[in-house]
Amino acid sequence: MRIALDAMGGDNAPRSTVGGAIDYLNTYGEDAADVILVGREDSIKPLLKNNSFPAEKLTVIHAPDLVTMDDKPAKVLRTKPNSSLVMAIQLLKSKEAEAVISAGNTGALLATSLFSLGMIKGIKRPAFAPHIPGPEGGFILCDVGANADAKPQNLVQFGIMASAYLEHLDGNDNPTVGLLNIGIEENKGNELTLAAYPLMKEHLPNFIGNIEARYILDGQVDVVVCDGFVGNTVLKFIEGVTSNMKQWLINTIKTQPNAAELSNLMQPIFSEMTKQLDYEEFGGTHLLGISAHVLKAHGDSTPRSISRTLYTAQKAYHENLIQDITRRIALHTIED
Amino acid sequence: MRIALDAMGGDNAPRSTVGGAIDYLNTYGEDAADVILVGREDSIKPLLKNNSFPAEKLTVIHAPDLVTMDDKPAKVLRTKPNSSLVMAIQLLKSKEAEAVISAGNTGALLATSLFSLGMIKGIKRPAFAPHIPGPEGGFILCDVGANADAKPQNLVQFGIMASAYLEHLDGNDNPTVGLLNIGIEENKGNELTLAAYPLMKEHLPNFIGNIEARYILDGQVDVVVCDGFVGNTVLKFIEGVTSNMKQWLINTIKTQPNAAELSNLMQPIFSEMTKQLDYEEFGGTHLLGISAHVLKAHGDSTPRSISRTLYTAQKAYHENLIQDITRRIALHTIED
Repeated sequence: MRIALDAMGGDNAPRSTVGGAIDYLNTYGEDAADVILVGREDSIKPLLKNNSFPAEKLTVIHAPDLVTMDDKPAKVLRTKPNSSLVMAIQLLKSKEAEAVISAGNTGALLATSLFSLGMIKGIKRPAFAPHIPGPEGGFILCDVGANADAKPQNLVQFGIMASAYLEHLDGNDNPTVGLLNIGIEENKGNELTLAAYPLMKEHLPNFIGNIEARYILDGQVDVVVCDGFVGNTVLKFIEGVTSNMKQWLINTIKTQPNAAELSNLMQPIFSEMTKQLDYEEFGGTHLLGISAHVLKAHGDSTPRSISRTLYTAQKAYHENLIQDITRRIALHTIED
Repeated sequence: MRIALDAMGGDNAPRSTVGGAIDYLNTYGEDAADVILVGREDSIKPLLKNNSFPAEKLTVIHAPDLVTMDDKPAKVLRTKPNSSLVMAIQLLKSKEAEAVISAGNTGALLATSLFSLGMIKGIKRPAFAPHIPGPEGGFILCDVGANADAKPQNLVQFGIMASAYLEHLDGNDNPTVGLLNIGIEENKGNELTLAAYPLMKEHLPNFIGNIEARYILDGQVDVVVCDGFVGNTVLKFIEGVTSNMKQWLINTIKTQPNAAELSNLMQPIFSEMTKQLDYEEFGGTHLLGISAHVLKAHGDSTPRSISRTLYTAQKAYHENLIQDITRRIALHTIED
């Protein structure tokens, strides 16, 4: 198996991507997939020097151009065909790779994948499905913004895809699915969730009904389904809470007479809690619904999270995730 | 001024409501509004005994019936005319009171107020606008679920109403308004926010554009506008984080060798942090858009939060909030 890695994508690229590839290859050794680093050779090659890794598993393909965060997603394929992001995706199209990973412009990755690779037969809309960690083990939140608006049948497909994803990636044989809603009763919700509820009940054997945002961190359900606007809002709010929590603790401690002592004692607690809520720890997010393995790593990925994302891509490929989603979607056709 | 208090509404009623009324009257003394406790006399009167308070400012009106959390909101007015909730609202209709407060069934309070009291001229949809506390002072989130679905012009009116509310209640002369969105650029969002943005820009002089959920706790904007589904989701997620945070800290501390010592030292920090994020500390939430002062206190209100809600109602009345909203809405007519 070969994984194309957009070496120039992300805030810390190419240091994070090259470092992540090396870490992955050294961690998994003979079991690792081949990694194709796509990007500027003059930036990548110096970073490979003085590092020991199984060189036969690493290729560099030169891509002279870059996609930036300011590039319009829908135009990238046409205006930047020689960018690392576009060239990495094209390797899937030309069957020179089986998965692609980028920590760069999310919209560009989505638009280019949609256009170049297309969707799985029967899928109406793709979805991002990150693993959200929590003190009780976390859950998959799907969608978090591949689309801002969704129809009821999209939500059903999000549930089907995310369930398959979790079964293969986590070995969770029977993941429960909840519909994120503002009440638990079937007759609660907005137009979208009211219409989605009966469809989810019909098509998802493990549908446990509505779940309110208050309880999603409690580990009650494995997959939380929502439209991309709501999911993105929840995801970003979690980021806000995570990034602020340490500061709140510190500020609160400062009001105490024994502030200095407390602050020292609490350092390991701070680190541990931030980690518990930090979804980057869990590597990249699959873009579910695309006809090939496309993974988005977080913009400020570290080498460690790139390494984990490479492993996730490898596992999804070997578990035949795309084929399984294709099979399940075919069993649950919903008319528009 | 007279405030009708649904004495039977809320998890801790009537102890919380009666205790809250006594606290309010004792705190504000001569400046306090008159309080009308509406509910079962035989439940209320024993709680008043052995308490000292300005008795001339407190009346009890007997209401034999109760609205429960299981009652269908839209039917309460017809099926439970002698309930404390309905009778309290009717006191506004008959001009025997100028504000009503209930910690009971939110949907019933909303539906009965809408039907009995009606909306301010020009308002299309009412909205709940709680103050969400945060380490940087907090913000008003509007709407959090008076309606699950919203149109662009509703969001504009939410912004106008919540701004007026904050100016009068907090003395903030120039509150900034942000549109909760999944990107900061004008061309980001779902159908609703894309259509709302230019309208908000036109009608709200203090509109600062989109704000992502990540930054709402940072104190960057005073009013965060969103549809009721999204707002309710954010509110409930905050509740989840707040109620879990202490437990996460404790669990994390338990993994440390000096757990017992740390746990003791951190007790005051736990209390302080929970308080910082606890929006109940801030008393009740106005139901903006109704033609009279209707306030919802939290279901598990303590006497203290009932007391604060009574003060909020009094202040809003003396500041002519309803008249000011009426005036502002008339200046900003938006066609459907």
